[in-house]
Amino acid sequence: MGIVLRGGAIVTSTDCYQADIRIEGEKIAAIGSQLAQAGDNVVPAEGYYIFPGGIDAHTHFDLPVSTISTADDFASGTRAAILGGTTTVIDYATQFKGETLRQGLDNWHRRAGGNCYTDYSFHMAITDWNEQVARELPWLSQEAGVTSVKLYMAYKHSMQLDDSALFQVLEGSLGCGILTCVHCENGDIVDNLTRQLRQQGKTAPAFHPLSRPPRVEQEAVNRLMILAEMTGAPVFVVHLSCREAMETVAEARLRGVRVFAETCPQYLVLDDSVYQDTTFACAGYVMSPPLRARENQAYLWNGLRIGILDTVATDHCSFNLLGQKDLGREDFSKIPNGAPGVEHRLGLLYTYGVKAGKLSLTQFVDKVATTPAKLFGLYPRKGTIAPGSDADLVLWDENSRFIIGAASHAHNVDYSAYEGIAQQGKAVHVFLRGRQVVKNGIATGDPLGKYLFRKPFLRSEV
Amino acid sequence: MGIVLRGGAIVTSTDCYQADIRIEGEKIAAIGSQLAQAGDNVVPAEGYYIFPGGIDAHTHFDLPVSTISTADDFASGTRAAILGGTTTVIDYATQFKGETLRQGLDNWHRRAGGNCYTDYSFHMAITDWNEQVARELPWLSQEAGVTSVKLYMAYKHSMQLDDSALFQVLEGSLGCGILTCVHCENGDIVDNLTRQLRQQGKTAPAFHPLSRPPRVEQEAVNRLMILAEMTGAPVFVVHLSCREAMETVAEARLRGVRVFAETCPQYLVLDDSVYQDTTFACAGYVMSPPLRARENQAYLWNGLRIGILDTVATDHCSFNLLGQKDLGREDFSKIPNGAPGVEHRLGLLYTYGVKAGKLSLTQFVDKVATTPAKLFGLYPRKGTIAPGSDADLVLWDENSRFIIGAASHAHNVDYSAYEGIAQQGKAVHVFLRGRQVVKNGIATGDPLGKYLFRKPFLRSEV
Amino acid sequence: MGIVLRGGAIVTSTDCYQADIRIEGEKIAAIGSQLAQAGDNVVPAEGYYIFPGGIDAHTHFDLPVSTISTADDFASGTRAAILGGTTTVIDYATQFKGETLRQGLDNWHRRAGGNCYTDYSFHMAITDWNEQVARELPWLSQEAGVTSVKLYMAYKHSMQLDDSALFQVLEGSLGCGILTCVHCENGDIVDNLTRQLRQQGKTAPAFHPLSRPPRVEQEAVNRLMILAEMTGAPVFVVHLSCREAMETVAEARLRGVRVFAETCPQYLVLDDSVYQDTTFACAGYVMSPPLRARENQAYLWNGLRIGILDTVATDHCSFNLLGQKDLGREDFSKIPNGAPGVEHRLGLLYTYGVKAGKLSLTQFVDKVATTPAKLFGLYPRKGTIAPGSDADLVLWDENSRFIIGAASHAHNVDYSAYEGIAQQGKAVHVFLRGRQVVKNGIATGDPLGKYLFRKPFLRSEV
Amino acid sequence: MGIVLRGGAIVTSTDCYQADIRIEGEKIAAIGSQLAQAGDNVVPAEGYYIFPGGIDAHTHFDLPVSTISTADDFASGTRAAILGGTTTVIDYATQFKGETLRQGLDNWHRRAGGNCYTDYSFHMAITDWNEQVARELPWLSQEAGVTSVKLYMAYKHSMQLDDSALFQVLEGSLGCGILTCVHCENGDIVDNLTRQLRQQGKTAPAFHPLSRPPRVEQEAVNRLMILAEMTGAPVFVVHLSCREAMETVAEARLRGVRVFAETCPQYLVLDDSVYQDTTFACAGYVMSPPLRARENQAYLWNGLRIGILDTVATDHCSFNLLGQKDLGREDFSKIPNGAPGVEHRLGLLYTYGVKAGKLSLTQFVDKVATTPAKLFGLYPRKGTIAPGSDADLVLWDENSRFIIGAASHAHNVDYSAYEGIAQQGKAVHVFLRGRQVVKNGIATGDPLGKYLFRKPFLRSEV
Repeated sequence: MGIVLRGGAIVTSTDCYQADIRIEGEKIAAIGSQLAQAGDNVVPAEGYYIFPGGIDAHTHFDLPVSTISTADDFASGTRAAILGGTTTVIDYATQFKGETLRQGLDNWHRRAGGNCYTDYSFHMAITDWNEQVARELPWLSQEAGVTSVKLYMAYKHSMQLDDSALFQVLEGSLGCGILTCVHCENGDIVDNLTRQLRQQGKTAPAFHPLSRPPRVEQEAVNRLMILAEMTGAPVFVVHLSCREAMETVAEARLRGVRVFAETCPQYLVLDDSVYQDTTFACAGYVMSPPLRARENQAYLWNGLRIGILDTVATDHCSFNLLGQKDLGREDFSKIPNGAPGVEHRLGLLYTYGVKAGKLSLTQFVDKVATTPAKLFGLYPRKGTIAPGSDADLVLWDENSRFIIGAASHAHNVDYSAYEGIAQQGKAVHVFLRGRQVVKNGIATGDPLGKYLFRKPFLRSEV
Repeated sequence: MGIVLRGGAIVTSTDCYQADIRIEGEKIAAIGSQLAQAGDNVVPAEGYYIFPGGIDAHTHFDLPVSTISTADDFASGTRAAILGGTTTVIDYATQFKGETLRQGLDNWHRRAGGNCYTDYSFHMAITDWNEQVARELPWLSQEAGVTSVKLYMAYKHSMQLDDSALFQVLEGSLGCGILTCVHCENGDIVDNLTRQLRQQGKTAPAFHPLSRPPRVEQEAVNRLMILAEMTGAPVFVVHLSCREAMETVAEARLRGVRVFAETCPQYLVLDDSVYQDTTFACAGYVMSPPLRARENQAYLWNGLRIGILDTVATDHCSFNLLGQKDLGREDFSKIPNGAPGVEHRLGLLYTYGVKAGKLSLTQFVDKVATTPAKLFGLYPRKGTIAPGSDADLVLWDENSRFIIGAASHAHNVDYSAYEGIAQQGKAVHVFLRGRQVVKNGIATGDPLGKYLFRKPFLRSEV
Repeated sequence: MGIVLRGGAIVTSTDCYQADIRIEGEKIAAIGSQLAQAGDNVVPAEGYYIFPGGIDAHTHFDLPVSTISTADDFASGTRAAILGGTTTVIDYATQFKGETLRQGLDNWHRRAGGNCYTDYSFHMAITDWNEQVARELPWLSQEAGVTSVKLYMAYKHSMQLDDSALFQVLEGSLGCGILTCVHCENGDIVDNLTRQLRQQGKTAPAFHPLSRPPRVEQEAVNRLMILAEMTGAPVFVVHLSCREAMETVAEARLRGVRVFAETCPQYLVLDDSVYQDTTFACAGYVMSPPLRARENQAYLWNGLRIGILDTVATDHCSFNLLGQKDLGREDFSKIPNGAPGVEHRLGLLYTYGVKAGKLSLTQFVDKVATTPAKLFGLYPRKGTIAPGSDADLVLWDENSRFIIGAASHAHNVDYSAYEGIAQQGKAVHVFLRGRQVVKNGIATGDPLGKYLFRKPFLRSEV
Repeated sequence: MGIVLRGGAIVTSTDCYQADIRIEGEKIAAIGSQLAQAGDNVVPAEGYYIFPGGIDAHTHFDLPVSTISTADDFASGTRAAILGGTTTVIDYATQFKGETLRQGLDNWHRRAGGNCYTDYSFHMAITDWNEQVARELPWLSQEAGVTSVKLYMAYKHSMQLDDSALFQVLEGSLGCGILTCVHCENGDIVDNLTRQLRQQGKTAPAFHPLSRPPRVEQEAVNRLMILAEMTGAPVFVVHLSCREAMETVAEARLRGVRVFAETCPQYLVLDDSVYQDTTFACAGYVMSPPLRARENQAYLWNGLRIGILDTVATDHCSFNLLGQKDLGREDFSKIPNGAPGVEHRLGLLYTYGVKAGKLSLTQFVDKVATTPAKLFGLYPRKGTIAPGSDADLVLWDENSRFIIGAASHAHNVDYSAYEGIAQQGKAVHVFLRGRQVVKNGIATGDPLGKYLFRKPFLRSEV
């Protein structure tokens, strides 16, 4: 007894063709014509695209920031994700100062366990590097199933590591198949620009972007490229936001540095004109890196198309304007950074990428599902539609149209960064490991998401 | 009644997984577990990789050059191709001076028709551009099924077009879905460097590379990039051979120029040390561009891996050392240019790319089959393994090992450019549209190859 | 008996200091304190800057273009020059099709002889390259005193040479100390863009810049760089107008290509907003390259400051709006190209460079006098203030202010490209070889200019 | 009563001409023909080049390093300098941890005062940045006459400042005309590479260069460029040693960053082949940055010629092999860094630059005297030959030839980095402020050097 999705237009990162998909248990058993057997549950999929379930490799759910926590926890966050066609998230667990990695990871397991509507895994953010932590890396990769870490070159005096620590983490990552994700902004410069702005009385949220201009991101990317080259370790640049940073990645890749890069829907669809808003609503766009000048968008879309940018994730990190963001009402540097978006990733990329002729359908699937799976050790279980893979499948109605907004979104936060923006196409039905979890656009049932042990980063797979 | 290839390791440009492939007629009907039905012919494929049939998008069979023709005609050339795992070739039909495109194409149909062991198609080389020829482009693309043309920036006084003609061909290509392939070397400079060498008595074949250094290729690539930008037309750089040219392509692509690029096994595996040979055997390596300094190889492999180089074709163009190449015994510039290789493309790329850790298996398939199919309008019929596609399939034994050489190759030419070089892996069984045409490494039966009408170049597909 | 300029602020391309200059005959005899001897004619120069006489190495006086000639001949042109502080011009003599170089040069000697208020010399524009012309190069350099030639990469079907001719001229220049000046625009592309504009009915002068965008200039510069590299010959890029071209020069120079570059006041001070004028007055700005987007100006000023741009010349080439420019009233491509400016070079560079803090005084002198002298074989006779050099001296009043305009300029043309633009500083007194030729801003006396035999280009002098 | 240097070939950074120089007191009074007056002391200078006295803007005399001090103190160091044609040195005074700038400067005044054979000044190395030190900057520039500071991006745990301190020093430099000199190597990476080498038992001096590869220098240069851009402050890169770093400087300068750069004779003349020496003598070349691969030399010479590199200084920092360098016999990282050279700067640059055709005579003077004077506030008092300037003059015999070596050099150190290398040309007579201090190659008399208060860095002068 299986399930047969009949006659959909299957899209992988290579192919697009019409066929049936036959599911047995949690897995795809076969793809082809007329696969239904007696007793099968046949779901008519004619007229839908069928995508592999999306993988959002950059979320922050239930993240404590000073005295508060993000508006979305794992329940609300993953529920929004699955409604948007994302069936797996990789959230950033964080080792805070004084903790071991294991303690940090345990904290996140506690937050996520039993609450997730998607399958889930963790990257491990290291903020306190020392010899003891160095010794935990093999355990992290081989036993805890966490095969990526994250380092911050920004946030001086809190998360920021110096180059020596970066070097040593990269050195340590080599032997145990860990991919190192890095937040690239020069925190020392940000810190000083922020001080200058404050000294000049420029404390409104609109001044936030002036404290972190593109060169500050580019500098950090360049430094990381040389750290990668010196250690021989692969690196992953998170939330790349501007032309300058992208050119630096491209140049390094051309000379053989093994670097991968992610961008986010906000950098593709929004721009820094939002900071002209003189009300505090503008705080909703206080994120790092900030939104950039409009001309960067074309470069980023091109970067996705030509493969300089490998993945699209959301960096979903939601805080309510009321009661959270307003901690920085008198000083933009005190506004908790981040914006919501996990629900809209596929929709925005489909609308403003595929429908606008900037990405092909196969590239779309590649960026939102396949390459994240390959880079982060989830492939071939996740990220593709092939016999043997998990039956994580999204039936996408390309004709659906609606307007994004806080009134209707599934995020548990009091504003939308995409308020009023049109989306074309929608995840109508979603299957997670063979079980239908979204039906006609409505999430059904309990949080069934499982923790995913990830495989080591393998040079030969990407 | 179908054929089932049972239990092979199927490789596409995205995926690698074990499954059965069920073929009905000329097409793949389904992929999955336990697909055999009663009456099916089951071929055990366990232990083999199954690749989509290779596509060599750059061959010159039966090409007349002054008083002679290439050593390989379509029969010997495509037979060698299919033995090497290539099931489709796109050969360069040529419009000679004074001819219409139709006349040029008719000549090539006459040469190829009924003689091919692979499926085949043509690019159209334009060497005489005028208003009448301009009017043939829509016919070429829409009726003749030829959706790519080729222009030469080299070979002054014979094939070379000036920038005005290049501009106009690109302009004309836009409306009818034609992709323009270009041989990028500055023929004026080559001509003058050749004259200087002759004046200095440097006429041995070893001086050939001095007449066409990397900068000469890079200059032409750069000029083409700007022609592409000015006209908005997509372009395809053939046989890119060196770091400088690759960097120019990368830079253009980064700023949004729609450019694709091909390299060849000879530039990945051989180097200019062969020109130290002071005997005339060295004439076997007189090709354009010439072989480059060894350090270029690492750049080209990296270029394939990071996607700056899109495809690998052979530029197979064979002349016998005895009786053909020796026309230039007294003057290297009179040696007919080119070298054989159509048989070894998959083998060399597999051995020195995949086995050497420079390319993943999926990248290998992408470069030799999938991307050529997509760029040249053969996809999804060719270039992948998916329900609905032609059952062009290569069963590859990764453990086979042998030494390439003229004594054993299938090419009809008296030397091998790869003499003595080891190959690992081999196309043991090959299917062309569902019919087995190579069995245990031996080509069976008649030339069954069909002419392929190609689809227009579609921006959104690549 | 000499002349002593007493107490001026002497400026060379290195130094700025107060001292007396003692002139004996045509030469500077000494510089220092209290140099006046009995019987000397003492000219009080306190309060003036004293610059070496300017050298404008790019003028077109009395140039025949189809049925007309430029509005300025050598008399009016050099008179305007000397009023502006320029004491030497190097005009572009032209070999027209079918002529020898000697015939071309003779024609220009006939035009200039006896008519010049400045000293003068010629570059030789070669538009018809063949073996006979090749044999004239040594004569040109060694006997005729013309040690620079000019080639056009633009003006297809008239002045344009192909790359083969460019290569051969560069090759020929090497042995006889000739510096090759090149107009860098890809004429084939210009030709086709012009045709496209005409086909679209875009024939007003405002469309002129669309026919020659920056990339068209950059492409030609890049090609020239490679021709220079392949031949080993030095090259000089005339009227460089945009960031893209400058970056290409910088990149080539960094890898060792021996390239020099000139820009013009119009590219530093004017921008393409003039083409928004929908009247035919806009034809006054039809020049090639066209004026560029405003953001290029900062790049060019920076290029002068950091030494990527070596000299500033005017490319003075004047045509009356009425009766000359209006030949292209119906078709911008028929408008004779060029604009006046020889009078304003020092003034514009002083006002918008030195006074605006973009150039130091010594850099100013370097660009308008010293480096042109060194590159074009006039140094140390011209271009500096030192014992033994010609006493070509400009007494500059930095406090003078006026508005440039056709009503008051000395050019013999019916409009000014700089109408209404303010100038600060003025050449009040000018000495040519020890004789005062401008007194209180008024040209005095007869045309005393002599023809200057120039020395071969010497690699070691620049 | 004056001194007249009769008939020498005077060379400035612009001009080369034969004339007399008349000196009155400490200053040049006049330059020209036949300047001798009754009672003048006439020194026949025919046959000599006369250069302005050299300025070595990078020396370390009497520098304490852990338990020792450099082999050369100010007496031996400046005596060697003046014998080599250098009449001014700018030494690096250092603020050690816990000191004020004033204390650091006082220490250096004590070391130098009364001991110098050349005029001298100081840069101030800041190694302990805090608010109190920040408040000393105006005093330093305006009262102490020290208008340049130095920061270290290398030497983690001792001299190295973080980016925040760099930012703040640059910010502070802006208001008081200070030019910031920076040692560009990423100390964190150096530290870790050194550790890796030690862990691998690679402790011989030959491994020193592996601990500081070119990318480590380039990274720091790039970071500095962005700090300069973010603050708007001018910066000066000391001892630039390799192609990569130079390209980064060139790129930044092209986009408008105000950066200057120095290289040293050792990077122009020596290369990393010295590290093949397996004896401890190799420790004589332990300096930072280390000597580079030979191919860098051509890039650096080209960089000087085209103006990307502004000055040549020695970074003279001498330690005896016996008793000093051998502190690191068991561990290269414990070898005191540096090498001698102050005596040979002009000679090496003349021999391997001017005589080798890589620099013109005027460029030579520019790099060793004029530009250092302009950048560091000594111009026009020093760095040129003009009326009113100090009569610091070097009479250079271009025909003198000898071999450099420890047996004959004036340095007070037991080895020469240039042992056995030929020098052509020699400072035969040297005048310091009108007094002859070297006669026929022999230093005469007492240490007459005065401390030079330097002028603020002026953007408009360079």
